[in-house]
Amino acid sequence: MKIVITNPSGLTENQIQELKQLGEVAVYSDTNNDNYAERLKDAEIAVIDNVLTPVTSEFLAKTPDLQFFSINSTGFDKVNVAATKQQGVIASNVPHYSTNSVAEMAIGLMFAVNRKIALGDKEFRNGLIAVDPGTPEQARFSGFDLIGKTLGVVGLGDIGSRIAEIGNGIGMSVIAYNRTEKNLPNVKQVSLPDLFKQADVVVLALALNDQTTGIITKELIETMKKSAIFVSIARRGLVDEDALQYALNIELIAGAGIDIADETWVDVKNTVVTPWIGYNTRESDENMGRIITENIKAFVNGNPINRIA
Amino acid sequence: MKIVITNPSGLTENQIQELKQLGEVAVYSDTNNDNYAERLKDAEIAVIDNVLTPVTSEFLAKTPDLQFFSINSTGFDKVNVAATKQQGVIASNVPHYSTNSVAEMAIGLMFAVNRKIALGDKEFRNGLIAVDPGTPEQARFSGFDLIGKTLGVVGLGDIGSRIAEIGNGIGMSVIAYNRTEKNLPNVKQVSLPDLFKQADVVVLALALNDQTTGIITKELIETMKKSAIFVSIARRGLVDEDALQYALNIELIAGAGIDIADETWVDVKNTVVTPWIGYNTRESDENMGRIITENIKAFVNGNPINRIA
Repeated sequence: MKIVITNPSGLTENQIQELKQLGEVAVYSDTNNDNYAERLKDAEIAVIDNVLTPVTSEFLAKTPDLQFFSINSTGFDKVNVAATKQQGVIASNVPHYSTNSVAEMAIGLMFAVNRKIALGDKEFRNGLIAVDPGTPEQARFSGFDLIGKTLGVVGLGDIGSRIAEIGNGIGMSVIAYNRTEKNLPNVKQVSLPDLFKQADVVVLALALNDQTTGIITKELIETMKKSAIFVSIARRGLVDEDALQYALNIELIAGAGIDIADETWVDVKNTVVTPWIGYNTRESDENMGRIITENIKAFVNGNPINRIA
Repeated sequence: MKIVITNPSGLTENQIQELKQLGEVAVYSDTNNDNYAERLKDAEIAVIDNVLTPVTSEFLAKTPDLQFFSINSTGFDKVNVAATKQQGVIASNVPHYSTNSVAEMAIGLMFAVNRKIALGDKEFRNGLIAVDPGTPEQARFSGFDLIGKTLGVVGLGDIGSRIAEIGNGIGMSVIAYNRTEKNLPNVKQVSLPDLFKQADVVVLALALNDQTTGIITKELIETMKKSAIFVSIARRGLVDEDALQYALNIELIAGAGIDIADETWVDVKNTVVTPWIGYNTRESDENMGRIITENIKAFVNGNPINRIA
């Protein structure tokens, strides 16, 4: 059995030793679209980063011996699931490994946008040492108290539910939109239009799929409060980003914190944009290495878990 | 009665109208050490920013008609209280106006430092769009999950108590140091050395006074965990800053978030430094304008409140 780890993905030395008991193991840390075909040409089991090397029909055609792969993420929107199934390949994802990390990142972005923390840090390095009350600089760095304000969580999966829980913990009122009824303590489920109208902070925590693509429309964004903040730790494709960027640039809303973006975001006003680091904690790493090892062992034992195909 | 407002300090148009019923009111927004003497030379009541224009003996000598002043902050470490009393001047501060704002700023700094939010935003603007797991960039942007970790709050005044409450709300274990016993729910009071040894995040929330100056010593800093973060929303003078900067630069500790700093902090490693904006929310502004108005009216009515002298 040839196992190719295209990306270390939190696997520890011990876990790699465990995998070596199942077959020959090759570990790479710089696999990309130019070199995956060579590295995976006779692989039967693989660990794949579906953002760096999307699992397309072409990918599958170039990996003819592949029987099983585990991706190194929860989201599998870059895996062509139909093509994977058609080629008889079994695939697993890594569910829930970064729930706390991503939820806490959303909360961190909310604080950073509201309290101008990234802007403050930048201006401090440029020589602004203190912003005194009553000086003209004060308005530029002003935010609002979160206690007593309304947090609107879009999507009550495990990440959204944890965000709602933290929101309550810091003294916010929590409303949420979810397709199905969830009955979480101190979370009032409302319609998507009501959520956008009422929330002081909107946090987007939906998975990207056929039902959710484009769900955050221009019309919803335009109904937000002028003082409100938009936060997203979700995949791109959910939001009308042109409309969101326009609303930010003309200050129709007060700010946004976005963890997954592209270069069109670089100059958008009143934003904190981070380079897709919501998952990135040592606990997530530990969970990921453990779950990927379990995924591979379960497949080898004939009982694959965490299947996406 | 001549009332001079050297700095608008959150006073609304309505509040200024109220003050005009008590006497002649002059409002300035750019008072500093070069122009205060001229503006205050015949003032009987004044609103003063004690950071911009410290109330020294010299200040008091140049304001001979002054009977009462209200500062526009809670901290009055730049007011020479003894000299103020000696000159027979009564003075008030603005207590509690920014408790929630400052406590939330501390929490925001904790998230920003831990999750590399200011660094991420900076590097995103420099062209780094995504940090994939397993790539060499990942370690630079890695943090830890706050849930289950230990938050150590130094000082359980109103700000520290609120920080402790939020820490519990986000799922951290909270320990705290306070000179006296406070009996807060889910807060375990410990000695200062134990707090520095045990905490994953230390938050400094003490007032600066004779008892607390220099309280955070090199020895305490050196006992912190290598993975731990230091956060301060407190006044300067509490901490051996040379020792703290050294610990950060050699990565004896993982990072720091500081709201009140000077230019020596510009190049310190793994820091988020903000230009003294912890107080800066619209709710704080509203509270400040209201309390300053109350302070002046109470003095005029012969029953001064919130006295510091």
